[in-house]
Amino acid sequence: MRQEVDIKGFTPVTKSAPIATDSHGGRAKCLQRLVRLDLPVPQTIALSFDAVHHIAAGQRPDIDAMLAVFGPAPLLSVRPSSEDPDWGGPGAMLNIGINATRHTQLCDSHGKRAADALYLRFVQAYAIHVARLDPDMFESDVSEPDALAAALDAYADETDEEFPQDPAVQLGEVLRSMARAWEGTTARLLRQAKGAPADAGLGLIVQQMALGVGPQESGSGVIQFVDSVSGKSQLTGRYLSQSQGRAALRAGEGALYLTRDSRGQSLQDLCPDVFDALVTAGDLLRRKLREEMQIEFTIEGGRMSIIDSVRVTRSASANVRVAVALAQDGIIRRSEAILRIPPRSLSELLHPQVDPRGARDPFVSGIAASPGGACGRICFTSAAAQASQSRGEAAILVRRETTPEDIRGMHSSVGVLTQRGGMTSHAAVIARGLGLPCVVGASALRLDHKDKQLISVDGRIFREGDIITIDGSTGEALVGAAEMLAPTLDAPFRTLMSWADEVRDIGVRANADTPADAATARNFDAEGIGLCRTEHMFFEHDRLTAMREMIFADAAKDRAEALARLLPMQRGDFTELFQIMGGQPVCIRLFDPPLHEFLPHTRGGMRELAEALDRPLSDVTRRIDALSEFNPMLGMRGVRLGITMPEIYEMQARAIFEATIEASRSGDPVEPEIMIPLVSAMREVELVKSRVDAVAAAVRVETQSDFSYKLGVMVETPRAALRAHEIAQHATFLSFGTNDLTQMTYGLSRDDAGRFMNSYVQQGVYAEDPFQILDTEGVGELLTIGAERGRDARPDITISICGEHGGNPESIAFCRQAGFDYVSCSPYRVPVARLAAAHLALLDKRGS
Amino acid sequence: MRQEVDIKGFTPVTKSAPIATDSHGGRAKCLQRLVRLDLPVPQTIALSFDAVHHIAAGQRPDIDAMLAVFGPAPLLSVRPSSEDPDWGGPGAMLNIGINATRHTQLCDSHGKRAADALYLRFVQAYAIHVARLDPDMFESDVSEPDALAAALDAYADETDEEFPQDPAVQLGEVLRSMARAWEGTTARLLRQAKGAPADAGLGLIVQQMALGVGPQESGSGVIQFVDSVSGKSQLTGRYLSQSQGRAALRAGEGALYLTRDSRGQSLQDLCPDVFDALVTAGDLLRRKLREEMQIEFTIEGGRMSIIDSVRVTRSASANVRVAVALAQDGIIRRSEAILRIPPRSLSELLHPQVDPRGARDPFVSGIAASPGGACGRICFTSAAAQASQSRGEAAILVRRETTPEDIRGMHSSVGVLTQRGGMTSHAAVIARGLGLPCVVGASALRLDHKDKQLISVDGRIFREGDIITIDGSTGEALVGAAEMLAPTLDAPFRTLMSWADEVRDIGVRANADTPADAATARNFDAEGIGLCRTEHMFFEHDRLTAMREMIFADAAKDRAEALARLLPMQRGDFTELFQIMGGQPVCIRLFDPPLHEFLPHTRGGMRELAEALDRPLSDVTRRIDALSEFNPMLGMRGVRLGITMPEIYEMQARAIFEATIEASRSGDPVEPEIMIPLVSAMREVELVKSRVDAVAAAVRVETQSDFSYKLGVMVETPRAALRAHEIAQHATFLSFGTNDLTQMTYGLSRDDAGRFMNSYVQQGVYAEDPFQILDTEGVGELLTIGAERGRDARPDITISICGEHGGNPESIAFCRQAGFDYVSCSPYRVPVARLAAAHLALLDKRGS
Repeated sequence: MRQEVDIKGFTPVTKSAPIATDSHGGRAKCLQRLVRLDLPVPQTIALSFDAVHHIAAGQRPDIDAMLAVFGPAPLLSVRPSSEDPDWGGPGAMLNIGINATRHTQLCDSHGKRAADALYLRFVQAYAIHVARLDPDMFESDVSEPDALAAALDAYADETDEEFPQDPAVQLGEVLRSMARAWEGTTARLLRQAKGAPADAGLGLIVQQMALGVGPQESGSGVIQFVDSVSGKSQLTGRYLSQSQGRAALRAGEGALYLTRDSRGQSLQDLCPDVFDALVTAGDLLRRKLREEMQIEFTIEGGRMSIIDSVRVTRSASANVRVAVALAQDGIIRRSEAILRIPPRSLSELLHPQVDPRGARDPFVSGIAASPGGACGRICFTSAAAQASQSRGEAAILVRRETTPEDIRGMHSSVGVLTQRGGMTSHAAVIARGLGLPCVVGASALRLDHKDKQLISVDGRIFREGDIITIDGSTGEALVGAAEMLAPTLDAPFRTLMSWADEVRDIGVRANADTPADAATARNFDAEGIGLCRTEHMFFEHDRLTAMREMIFADAAKDRAEALARLLPMQRGDFTELFQIMGGQPVCIRLFDPPLHEFLPHTRGGMRELAEALDRPLSDVTRRIDALSEFNPMLGMRGVRLGITMPEIYEMQARAIFEATIEASRSGDPVEPEIMIPLVSAMREVELVKSRVDAVAAAVRVETQSDFSYKLGVMVETPRAALRAHEIAQHATFLSFGTNDLTQMTYGLSRDDAGRFMNSYVQQGVYAEDPFQILDTEGVGELLTIGAERGRDARPDITISICGEHGGNPESIAFCRQAGFDYVSCSPYRVPVARLAAAHLALLDKRGS
Repeated sequence: MRQEVDIKGFTPVTKSAPIATDSHGGRAKCLQRLVRLDLPVPQTIALSFDAVHHIAAGQRPDIDAMLAVFGPAPLLSVRPSSEDPDWGGPGAMLNIGINATRHTQLCDSHGKRAADALYLRFVQAYAIHVARLDPDMFESDVSEPDALAAALDAYADETDEEFPQDPAVQLGEVLRSMARAWEGTTARLLRQAKGAPADAGLGLIVQQMALGVGPQESGSGVIQFVDSVSGKSQLTGRYLSQSQGRAALRAGEGALYLTRDSRGQSLQDLCPDVFDALVTAGDLLRRKLREEMQIEFTIEGGRMSIIDSVRVTRSASANVRVAVALAQDGIIRRSEAILRIPPRSLSELLHPQVDPRGARDPFVSGIAASPGGACGRICFTSAAAQASQSRGEAAILVRRETTPEDIRGMHSSVGVLTQRGGMTSHAAVIARGLGLPCVVGASALRLDHKDKQLISVDGRIFREGDIITIDGSTGEALVGAAEMLAPTLDAPFRTLMSWADEVRDIGVRANADTPADAATARNFDAEGIGLCRTEHMFFEHDRLTAMREMIFADAAKDRAEALARLLPMQRGDFTELFQIMGGQPVCIRLFDPPLHEFLPHTRGGMRELAEALDRPLSDVTRRIDALSEFNPMLGMRGVRLGITMPEIYEMQARAIFEATIEASRSGDPVEPEIMIPLVSAMREVELVKSRVDAVAAAVRVETQSDFSYKLGVMVETPRAALRAHEIAQHATFLSFGTNDLTQMTYGLSRDDAGRFMNSYVQQGVYAEDPFQILDTEGVGELLTIGAERGRDARPDITISICGEHGGNPESIAFCRQAGFDYVSCSPYRVPVARLAAAHLALLDKRGS
């Protein structure tokens, strides 16, 4: 007898029953689909979210009506059915309905051992999860003598009641306990962490058991048709005779492989008909459910049942391959394939990963600041890292925190570990930019600089040269060299990205400072460079010396001389960048940082500098003193430096124009974009523009060559956004530097926020860390104001974002909405951004 | 023959001639007024701005027509007549028209010596100012033999031409050279510095000479009827026989006093009729010109002429007294008296001043950061200043730059001199707040800390204890004790301010942190305290210790204990403030600065702290290290500290409420205002509010007393302004802290801006230093946005400004326009603000 309508709080799962994912959960819906495909699913009923919610609230369900669906004395399972399988739920309960009477019957029909096993399994699960008794008392195995009797006695001892014999009581209590468990605080927090809404509901599935034990061939197994890690087509799974549920996957050697091969007996050998039926079912599911499904099946007396089916758990890479294959096979549309890949999941593909299946010995846990795995030798200084690299030994830079002087060291390292800092510390930001795996804020470590050692909280000592592994995806640092998985920019990935680019309607550029960055950007199909920070170019050794000479120059002549030595190097940098980018736009930000970043901070460094410059140490310390600032973020940097020391920008403009001519001669024509940092007033732009224009005119005359270029402004101060209409009079583009803009809008230093940001986000003071997720309310309003005013003054102005936020799907959505022309992000985020932009375009189309 | 209309580029000055200040200049207009009063003014014609401009451009004026006005062979003077006498102009030229013929006649009529003197004076002035010959060659005095002939010869030698004999040529050349001089670059820059517009015009006055030399009593003199310094009624002036122009003022002992007294012969003795006529004229002018005028007169053969009359030059204090007296005498209206006092001029009245007439020996010149004069002994440390004060010796604190740790030292000093910093450096801001004369950025000084000496650029050495004088009005530091003028809060000042308060329509409060500040604020009739910074209260010795113990507390219990020791001190502070303010509103800002400001920066200080806390030095340095910040301005301070260490705000709230009860018991009822600093998100306010409310509830229960209070927000971050509608849901007032708001809107640290602000303002990159003059375009828009959104959410919200800008007339105009309820400024700016606000109200009424 099958009931069609939910008149008692439950719905039998039939082809036509009103079952939906958002009312009964994904598992219920999936089972209905299996039923519709005429697959051998045992009798099943589904309890809706509402019904379960009422049960949790104390309402008694109509158990008798439920039991009536299944015929006389059924054995039943109950499984959770949440809207999204990732949100979890209580574990399955099997063999509900068993009692002394039924046990006696099963002893006759299935043998005593099978009957004992079924009963014991239920008693144990019930005692622990429903009666909440001490799990230690219910650990016995069915192979132990009198295990069942002991469990029943233990239950009676602990509860002062006999184990419940009435199937209706059993089922009612199981349903109640599962409903309650879902509403518990821990479960709620766990699923919210996975993105579930606060009021996410739980459905429950009650299903007739296919026992998997008994005298004829009985057992249970799991089968899927793709590899979870690679996503490649491959039949995998396990079968275990005389088992229930997913026991086959836990059984290790005892379980059978499914396909016939060299490794001994297989399910294909044992039950060829069942095997064939499973393969047929798998193919059917892929086509009809338009997904790669894992099937849980049971054989009872030679008859196969499909108990359950779930989407194959898979790596990000496998997810891409599966989606592309489904689209290529015509099963889903390309747009569907694109939308099936969460943009952020791509970052997992773009770095080598520590193999999660390998052995791992973590010695500290910090903040996972930049994803990927890296293995190398500990280096406590940037110099050591450079030396290590030159010896061909991979280096892991380990610092209390990094400073701009460590850039070279970071370039020379394969990974970074710092004791201090948060997601937005220098180390974290630069590492993400460089695509270096990075763990920051490993505050439990003790760094003993004097003796050059690292001491973990459990007292393990690491010395320079010791090999460790950084897992930037989990935030752990591991002892020794962990096993790694290579990054996979395979054909499916490239196919997916090409499909994404076809639908995308906002540009994606990369922030790239070095030829290596630029090459990465091109490899990831960035549409140009949106932000090339030039200051990194001055930290290389010979340049640093010239830079310091310039800083110490007493006369304009000496300053010009030092800059003249930097000119050819800068020209070389830009020529190479232009050549790598092959005519794509390159937006170069003029020199930005305060000069003191180029001076040593230690006594020793100052002494060396005094020697190098042949000046008294007191001169050096006095100059360093004079350049020191209370708040360097808000000090003498960016365009302020450009205006008070015009020689620097003039040298850079010349280098850019000469490189433009050189690169255009040998390749595609180049039209460089020059960007002025830290603008707060229109006149700053006007002044720099007139000087840059003059340099361009001079270079044109000297070289007898013509070229064009664009001049624009990096909008990083609130005032620049508010005065964008004025600024746009002298700027052909505005690019929002949301890192600094966020700092100034909040009055919050990125480097200092780490000390309270966690607590702030936890207390809900800020909904999100605004350095991670663009603050659309405050900073975002300045972006909107700036873009609108900029366009009012110059309708064809190019508007973009080039902060760290540029690679975040949420920020891209905001910028696209505000009509930005492009976003620019770190090279390794480019694919994420391209895919996220495609999602937005598709969702817009779908919505409209 | 008098001509009435300007048909030839000039206008005879008659009662009805069309002469106006904005077309012919102030002197022309004033002379016309004298004519209208029937005073004995020699025949005069006025050249308009246009006419002079044409002359400068090369057009020839109709000299013959001009000469015709004066009758046969006149001797003439030419004087400048700019729109505002302060804008300057070329010097007067006398005796135009004299030549050999006229000289001969004058020898007959006036005697040779007089004739020679007249001719020589003209030849010298013409040679130097018109022919531009070397002044050294024309220095001879008429008493030298053949001085006239020598001058004529020198002229002929240098120019290869005879001295021009044609009066028309003489007058034409004089007019041309004076017109040209006005349009020269230097003159233009000078008058623009005094506020003249770029196209300010010059009129010229041509007047028949009253010669002041001759056989009968002849001479010239100057008379005025008030004292220039005090403004008190007092007839002063000088008269010199046989002289012209203002020679009497330069003549020293040779000149006569005007009134009859013990010092020998006076004009009153010599020419009693002339004296009486002058006194009558003075009274007439005061009543009719409604101003205290200085009169320039000439006696020729016993007949008195009035040549010219100008407004009496006067001190700011005299200006107040004169205006009030004119109003009290019914000559001008009170509103006119108010408007005649430039608000900023009051600050001159509120501090002792270095007597500008005294001898001064400056050893360095820096930036005049806080007005007034102060004299005391050099102290190189705050400790030395405190010691000096306790010995009863006035201290001048001399530092490279000051830090918050110097607050006590500044309190103990009478003036401050720093080597570094600008108008907005710590020293400058605090000194203005304290009303301490201050000179900053005296970068030519060398500070030798080791040997405790100060070396001036000319090598003079000053040691601790040496006496110097700071002139915060001129920016100079002087050797020794200079003569001083006392501040004059006299009856006229108080009368004027009471008149101003009657018309003012925006509130004025004071920023006051200490009882002394509060007393000053009351003395200057502030309508309450708009900003009481509480952190200054923690720098006193015993409090600093408790503060540091709190910072070093490992457990919440220890922190609470340290705070418990601070509680009674804070309560005492607030009780005293409430009592001083006598029921007027007091707005208390909760603790704001980063904790590291309370820790020592030197090795020695750290060692002492380690001893005081009985902890190892390494503990101390580690904590200081951990608290150090990259950008303290943007770090862990303000409400961020209040949220992460709630105990501090809870202690402060308790102290405020307990003080409220205590002060209300003994005096007027107090309703304290509690202000939360550095807010960037609504939830910060919500959290602090709920804690403060809880403390209030607890105090009410404990004390069985009721009280009310207000809670509001200091809007200092751009985001707080943008989100004011949200924030206003939990705030009954918003006070804009424009110091920090400017820093964040520009991305510009006040402490670091000094290094380029001058050059920025000079190049016109910023129109003004935004820390001096509120940036109405950028920061101002955030003020408008914040005020509007705040009011939208809560129509009865109180809006105010409490940054340094609060005392500036421009900012007050902006805030009044935006409908702010009050401005708050440093106590010494309160009268300025009150007067400025009165001006705005009057000008508005006048405009409407």
